[in-house]
Amino acid sequence: MENVLAYIDQHQDRFLDELKEFLKIKSVSADSAFKSEITRCADFVKNHLDSIGLNNVEIIQTSGYPVVYAETDIDPTKKTILLYGHYDVQPPDPLDLWETPPFEPSIRDGQLFARGVSDDKGQVFCHIKAIEAWLRTEGKLPVNIKIIIEGEEEIGSPSLQPFLNQYKEKLSADIALVSDTPMIGLNQPSICFSLRGLLYLELTITSAGTDLHSGQHGGAVPNAILGATQIIHALKDASNKVTIPGFYDDVEELSPALKEEIRSLPYSEKEYLDSIGASHLSGEAGYTAYEQRWFRPTLDCNGIYGGYTGEGAKTVIPSKTTIKLSMRLVSKQNPYDIFEKFKAFLPQITPKGYHVDIHSHSFAFPAQINPEHPAVKAGLTALEKAFGVKAKRQGEGGTIPVVADFKQILGLETVLMGFNLPDDRIHAPNERFSLYNFFKGITASSYFFKEL
Amino acid sequence: MENVLAYIDQHQDRFLDELKEFLKIKSVSADSAFKSEITRCADFVKNHLDSIGLNNVEIIQTSGYPVVYAETDIDPTKKTILLYGHYDVQPPDPLDLWETPPFEPSIRDGQLFARGVSDDKGQVFCHIKAIEAWLRTEGKLPVNIKIIIEGEEEIGSPSLQPFLNQYKEKLSADIALVSDTPMIGLNQPSICFSLRGLLYLELTITSAGTDLHSGQHGGAVPNAILGATQIIHALKDASNKVTIPGFYDDVEELSPALKEEIRSLPYSEKEYLDSIGASHLSGEAGYTAYEQRWFRPTLDCNGIYGGYTGEGAKTVIPSKTTIKLSMRLVSKQNPYDIFEKFKAFLPQITPKGYHVDIHSHSFAFPAQINPEHPAVKAGLTALEKAFGVKAKRQGEGGTIPVVADFKQILGLETVLMGFNLPDDRIHAPNERFSLYNFFKGITASSYFFKEL
Repeated sequence: MENVLAYIDQHQDRFLDELKEFLKIKSVSADSAFKSEITRCADFVKNHLDSIGLNNVEIIQTSGYPVVYAETDIDPTKKTILLYGHYDVQPPDPLDLWETPPFEPSIRDGQLFARGVSDDKGQVFCHIKAIEAWLRTEGKLPVNIKIIIEGEEEIGSPSLQPFLNQYKEKLSADIALVSDTPMIGLNQPSICFSLRGLLYLELTITSAGTDLHSGQHGGAVPNAILGATQIIHALKDASNKVTIPGFYDDVEELSPALKEEIRSLPYSEKEYLDSIGASHLSGEAGYTAYEQRWFRPTLDCNGIYGGYTGEGAKTVIPSKTTIKLSMRLVSKQNPYDIFEKFKAFLPQITPKGYHVDIHSHSFAFPAQINPEHPAVKAGLTALEKAFGVKAKRQGEGGTIPVVADFKQILGLETVLMGFNLPDDRIHAPNERFSLYNFFKGITASSYFFKEL
Repeated sequence: MENVLAYIDQHQDRFLDELKEFLKIKSVSADSAFKSEITRCADFVKNHLDSIGLNNVEIIQTSGYPVVYAETDIDPTKKTILLYGHYDVQPPDPLDLWETPPFEPSIRDGQLFARGVSDDKGQVFCHIKAIEAWLRTEGKLPVNIKIIIEGEEEIGSPSLQPFLNQYKEKLSADIALVSDTPMIGLNQPSICFSLRGLLYLELTITSAGTDLHSGQHGGAVPNAILGATQIIHALKDASNKVTIPGFYDDVEELSPALKEEIRSLPYSEKEYLDSIGASHLSGEAGYTAYEQRWFRPTLDCNGIYGGYTGEGAKTVIPSKTTIKLSMRLVSKQNPYDIFEKFKAFLPQITPKGYHVDIHSHSFAFPAQINPEHPAVKAGLTALEKAFGVKAKRQGEGGTIPVVADFKQILGLETVLMGFNLPDDRIHAPNERFSLYNFFKGITASSYFFKEL
């Protein structure tokens, strides 16, 4: 293990340079304009996994973007880890809010800034470099590792379920390992045992055959923005509860003991508000912020556009407005069931004179992991050894659809060992990843392979 | 007069070709990207007025876009008309809804399609061609005419008041003539005696320092789209009345006689709905559609954008949302006073955690014209002679700020003689102008010069 740690220390500069090359590739999965960059990124990952000495490295095509696969020598007497990550990234918009361009990685104050650095290229790289360190020093790892790195996580992983079903045998393992969740805070490592699911819809509200002159027609005709507003407004009540009938039917409350454990985690509302640049919180009445973010379902608008959105003033009554609308789901909520409940409710809240078209973008089940699993314990120990601080358990509000799929299709529990921080601005301008955590992450991953 | 009418008949094709050249110029005033096209359009108008034999043709600079001026020989024994029009046009967005490109004029089914054909280039051209017909046949007109054609009408004419004040002497006249309003319907010519005013604002709602990941933060933090929605929703009540305190203070009801006259105008709700492609109307309770559109104030959203508006799904909680919001004003409502009332109300309807920045785009007073004025009567007669149908009086929901300015600064009443139709899709894709009305408009304008 000393050799492994020494190797990591000696090669920090190169590791960082390699990560920067990975980050320069504009692998945005949500926008088809970036298709060739996705392909280039899959090639980069394949070549890199080849170069560190892994076996059977290949790009596996799916009906969407490909998955990159690799494995160590497989020794049947050792435990097998299925390591998962994604090489695709969120769109970089709004571009004008980035201090340095999203695809030109830049270091400031010990932080590396780039789209995808924290979600998920930097974290994927922690494990790859840990594997490299073991292979280049000891010639082999204390565990078998199978690696899959996909290119559709940011659009809900539509091809991954078919992929897991098709390659069930090839991917057989004892435990899955995913680094796509944050730690609780700076120098407070943690492992996550709960993820929220997702239902992501797009609604287009139509009120007329064409945009209308607001002078000639204003006062008599429906307005698609006002119609959209009424629909959105009707979806939440004054206590920020979602009004869709049956929405909370399958939501379980935390056990009193677990609730107590979560309430004891370090938290400062002022620090949280400062970190996001907000003046007030705005959550469901009766729950703490951690509970609202990790264990309660919610509904948000993620985008809206309608009418004239250019410079200056245009006096139109818009005939169309589009809303991107998503719900985060928890415990036993089923995204398909919630979608049916939403569709049944929509006509009741759609005012006369408006027509709504619904398009569904993604469905992901929530996931719960047994917090007492031995691999979770091994993860906590590895983190403690790397960071020198006792690691804790936490929930997470984001969606990693593959975690539910690993359980359902491959029968695997997942260790969610994350290295980024809650204020790393993932999905937002100026996404960043602390260099300290990047190198500690490589160390923690190296320990985990031994502890398991 | 026979010679004038014959000249108009003989030169229809050339008139149409010249109008098409006018329409090819992309004189969009709302977007500074089109600045050079505005300049090119002013030059076109100047050269054209020169070519038909007008005097003292000049481009007069303002602090914004220029005004083109011209005049006939001035005979102090004749009445003087101040003819007003505008050469700027609305932005053509959304481009994908145009059947033929907005700046490539195209004729289908007796209609000419292009951005600005109906609002206002085609209508301006009716008068210019009438003047040409008189000059080329009789050598002079029965009235003096001073022409001003401006380039900022679609952005609220910000430079026109200073212009009218500066050139008060030069512009002295007996009556103003404006063609920028529609006729009641096909082959039902009319003159308008009432225009609504306008207050056009832009609100930017901010909820955080940056867009946030909807998984990590959703459920606890404010969402700028939801904040915008709550503000919009609070501005109108269930009967579609505007909720701003004092908003209706200066709104006068129509006299019972005038109300009766307006209710007797031809109107079919089904035809109106069909013409705009809507399934239901959505107006203030207690008023007919003509009343709602002409004599009642209203509030509409003209544009909205926030969060992710690209292809696919992005799981962000938006930190900013922008609303373009306008109010149409009537009778004695003062846009500056309404702006103050709005600003006083806004904090009461802005939920905690949201900050709102307000930018004002334009202020225009409503205008009332004496429906018994002799020039209005002369206009009704001219229309009747050109169309062969008794002309009627009507109101109009749009804003032509210059009408209030003519009265206030120059002391002039305005004859609003319009030739386009309510379903000509002004400000919308596939704007059009009937060729029948274009040529009848030239004839009516020629008669008007004589009748006055």
